[in-house]
Amino acid sequence: MTSSADVTVERCSIARSLEVLGQKWSLLIVREAVLRQRTRFADFRTALGIAPDVLTDRLGRLVDAGILERRPYRTEGERERVEYVLTAAGEALRPVLAAIGSWGDEHTPSGYGPAAVQVRRSTGEPVRLAFVDSRGREVALDDVVAIPGPGAL
Amino acid sequence: MTSSADVTVERCSIARSLEVLGQKWSLLIVREAVLRQRTRFADFRTALGIAPDVLTDRLGRLVDAGILERRPYRTEGERERVEYVLTAAGEALRPVLAAIGSWGDEHTPSGYGPAAVQVRRSTGEPVRLAFVDSRGREVALDDVVAIPGPGAL
Repeated sequence: MTSSADVTVERCSIARSLEVLGQKWSLLIVREAVLRQRTRFADFRTALGIAPDVLTDRLGRLVDAGILERRPYRTEGERERVEYVLTAAGEALRPVLAAIGSWGDEHTPSGYGPAAVQVRRSTGEPVRLAFVDSRGREVALDDVVAIPGPGAL
Repeated sequence: MTSSADVTVERCSIARSLEVLGQKWSLLIVREAVLRQRTRFADFRTALGIAPDVLTDRLGRLVDAGILERRPYRTEGERERVEYVLTAAGEALRPVLAAIGSWGDEHTPSGYGPAAVQVRRSTGEPVRLAFVDSRGREVALDDVVAIPGPGAL
């Protein structure tokens, strides 16, 4: 027998995503990887002030979820170590980070201004996240509505 | 003395947002409110299969965070009850849900297709989340980069 919660995780992409990303620290590790290009255990640990056992667990889950991949590296005179590199699925979390970050900047402001801003690489012009139609033109937020899709129960 | 983790929460809007939204169930409650227009304790409970004490705690945190607000209502012949209505800050989580949902649809597919799709209310045309420039025109994902903002350390 399947509970309502099991069905939610099976059918709902938000619930499935949160199985990985909803773990405390996971999305902050992804933030460090995406926004600061960090790949090394010691760098994640220092940046986040996270306990080593928790960091080991979360990096392992992100690898299992296909968001990071392990890659060996060796620094001259040291033993081989492993670094954690974003996969294409990990890079694709950029809009998730931008959406959460811009919500936080607007609705839980720090008073210091945004810690990170998204810009166009080629011109430096600020960009923002929005809904767009099939031709890539912005659609106002209040003109967007969610309807059940093919996977809805 | 302030630890690295405290500074992260103070300055980083993603970390601040996750203080509320990163709690297990919180974003799924918001999903039910945004996508299914649910407002009542019993409806959230049935839809999510969540324990009542956890649901009470999460609804309270979402109220404290300004995402939901309590509103009294009375059904004929019953005692007054409270329902939970999205605030403007709660409605503004729609892009966060869309970003997480579309990442999940692409990178952890259920095999059933999306459970929800975003469409333009006025025409029914599908819309998607993208980065846009100041004139509301789409900018390709690989042309977007995050740089430190005024609140960066």
